[in-house]
Amino acid sequence: MTLTRDDFLALDEQDILAPFADEFRIPEGLIYLDGNSLGAMPKAAMERAKHVIEQEWGTDLIKSWNKAGWFDLVERLGDKTATLIGADKGEVIYADATGLNVYKLVAAALEMRPDRKVIVMEGSNFPTDNYMVQGLIKQLDRGHEIRFAEDGEILDAIRDDVACVCITHVHYKTGHLHDMAAITKKAHDVGALAVWDLCHSAGALAVDLNGCNVDFALGCTYKYLNGGPGSQSFMFVAKRHHGKAMQPLTGWWGHDAPFGFERDYRPRKDIRQFSTGTEPIVSLAMSEVGLDIFMRADMGEIRKKSLKLCDLFIQLLDERLGGYGFSLATPKEHDRRGSQVSIYSDKGFAIMQALIAADVVGDFRAPDIMRFGFTPLYVSYVNVWDAVERLKNIMETNAWDKPEFKKVGAVT
Amino acid sequence: MTLTRDDFLALDEQDILAPFADEFRIPEGLIYLDGNSLGAMPKAAMERAKHVIEQEWGTDLIKSWNKAGWFDLVERLGDKTATLIGADKGEVIYADATGLNVYKLVAAALEMRPDRKVIVMEGSNFPTDNYMVQGLIKQLDRGHEIRFAEDGEILDAIRDDVACVCITHVHYKTGHLHDMAAITKKAHDVGALAVWDLCHSAGALAVDLNGCNVDFALGCTYKYLNGGPGSQSFMFVAKRHHGKAMQPLTGWWGHDAPFGFERDYRPRKDIRQFSTGTEPIVSLAMSEVGLDIFMRADMGEIRKKSLKLCDLFIQLLDERLGGYGFSLATPKEHDRRGSQVSIYSDKGFAIMQALIAADVVGDFRAPDIMRFGFTPLYVSYVNVWDAVERLKNIMETNAWDKPEFKKVGAVT
Repeated sequence: MTLTRDDFLALDEQDILAPFADEFRIPEGLIYLDGNSLGAMPKAAMERAKHVIEQEWGTDLIKSWNKAGWFDLVERLGDKTATLIGADKGEVIYADATGLNVYKLVAAALEMRPDRKVIVMEGSNFPTDNYMVQGLIKQLDRGHEIRFAEDGEILDAIRDDVACVCITHVHYKTGHLHDMAAITKKAHDVGALAVWDLCHSAGALAVDLNGCNVDFALGCTYKYLNGGPGSQSFMFVAKRHHGKAMQPLTGWWGHDAPFGFERDYRPRKDIRQFSTGTEPIVSLAMSEVGLDIFMRADMGEIRKKSLKLCDLFIQLLDERLGGYGFSLATPKEHDRRGSQVSIYSDKGFAIMQALIAADVVGDFRAPDIMRFGFTPLYVSYVNVWDAVERLKNIMETNAWDKPEFKKVGAVT
Repeated sequence: MTLTRDDFLALDEQDILAPFADEFRIPEGLIYLDGNSLGAMPKAAMERAKHVIEQEWGTDLIKSWNKAGWFDLVERLGDKTATLIGADKGEVIYADATGLNVYKLVAAALEMRPDRKVIVMEGSNFPTDNYMVQGLIKQLDRGHEIRFAEDGEILDAIRDDVACVCITHVHYKTGHLHDMAAITKKAHDVGALAVWDLCHSAGALAVDLNGCNVDFALGCTYKYLNGGPGSQSFMFVAKRHHGKAMQPLTGWWGHDAPFGFERDYRPRKDIRQFSTGTEPIVSLAMSEVGLDIFMRADMGEIRKKSLKLCDLFIQLLDERLGGYGFSLATPKEHDRRGSQVSIYSDKGFAIMQALIAADVVGDFRAPDIMRFGFTPLYVSYVNVWDAVERLKNIMETNAWDKPEFKKVGAVT
């Protein structure tokens, strides 16, 4: 039976997550399928920012380090995030940016495996992870090398010369979901450590770090967690490594007595050692608003809706857009994908520009991938239908074939 | 002739910087002498934050990376900051936090002097600089060492085994101003490089990096530059080192083609190589508001008023608070101090708490220093008189000698 728009409206009627959409600001008429790049703004974020700026900074000034708990914010947000990624209290901290945290965690892992020189990474990963590790091993100059492996090759690449694997859980381009349990187990079997990048999985699906016995992880908060543009990254360090794993960017926030102003560094023996120094507080505090919405939502329901949204999008592409040379980059199997659908098309750049002009925002990744992210807290079922309809209209009328849609600009 | 409150009111009448005070939010009745720790809030910061949050994030969403110039913000703010520190366009960039930038710049300097193993630092400096360099040399494990030297010993410590000096221009505790020209010259004379930390001088006095032939510098924006709590740090790299000096925290924002998503790192050949990755945009954007105020103020006038405020504070302490065991930690000579006055007192902690309770906010640094920062854009002459009067009252009535003023809490 062919699907109709009414079927999607009916699904929205029954959707127990539907009320969450009201908590986000989405411009009238816009279908926003780019929450995997920059999550939408929780309406309460403005109120929180106003309080932090006018009351905590403007009025309470320096007292806010204690009174407003600025110094402890990195741990409080960490504890909340822990509940979304299968970690325990005290295992997660907010600090700096994802690239820096990749550096810290891989550096800590390498120091724990001094006799091994290989890091297994996915060459097609979002490149900053690779760049940071390339910078690290060049700097160390002790003969380390990255063994690049793609999806099917990763398990084989993990051999007994490997110090650590550093893999992004969900691939930024294809939406492919890696098997965290199997890769981590293989790493441990050969005596290596596992570092997971959760940029495209935290908030998109239930991650089970401790269930998979993961050693280290990090992730970003401005995608599925709706923390605001460039909001800080989080890190996970398994409790068994606390006081043993040490990161080298040793700032005063990671000191055992940060307010003792001692001359020499003495590391904290817990997750706080992984922080460095003073964080941009307004951005950090605002990211708690996005997180607090997740504290009230059920991650199982989020995943269920995410899979359904993606399934339906794939089905409609099949049914309604058969003749336009699109092919799926994202696996169809549920246990093999995150919360996005990526499509190959050699005209992808122009088509995406035309879609954006038609108020359907996804994004494009060179050379030929159109990405559509599905964020169940504020994307509805009827959004899926309407997005495909607008895409169909663009293809039928060749609306993408205009010079203004072919001008290349920076995208992220 | 003894000074009276009327003398201070008269000075305020004549003060050409006085109108700037209206641009900052200072709670009614509060005398805020802690702008050297956390600068006051420019009133326009809220409006700017609201625009970034509601319009750029909430409405324009992902488009803002181009439309609102988020990606270029780090350079635009850098160019503005350059005018305050004697740097040229293209030599300054915003990125990350001060500690991380110390790490990057010292790492770059060490790589340029591979045969030298000594870094000269001030042991009594704000410790995060020392901690970061300790972390770096431990990680490099190539026999580097820090040669700690205090004020009078620094020039002698710079010998031909030195790779770089890394000194904070104005000392965080004492307010002592180091001779940037002489120390940089001595470094160059022995073949070393000079890294300057401007945390307590940028925005406090006219810094002349290129006039002093400085190699690298960094500074913070949440003190004298009023960027907001924890707002990002800036870095200076002299143009002659661009493309040669390379920092090791190599993220995608420092890549030659950040949106090419290449697998391997290829460094930019300019200041941008010193950035790493996505910055917390709300905090970053807000810090432009503080900077824009400086674009309209004359740094010569700021310095003149700063010295006068400090001179008067010192004079009043002398005249009116002679019998209470206070002694000056800050040099009296103008060319030897920044924009703060620090006082030794073994009862300093409790006295500062009592002062704060009396709405005069300075801060305390263990074991025995009370700090008073003078920020000419929003501190008036009469604030100086009133602060000393309240301190006098506290001393005369022993108001500091209460249990609630002796409880130690975290301060920053």
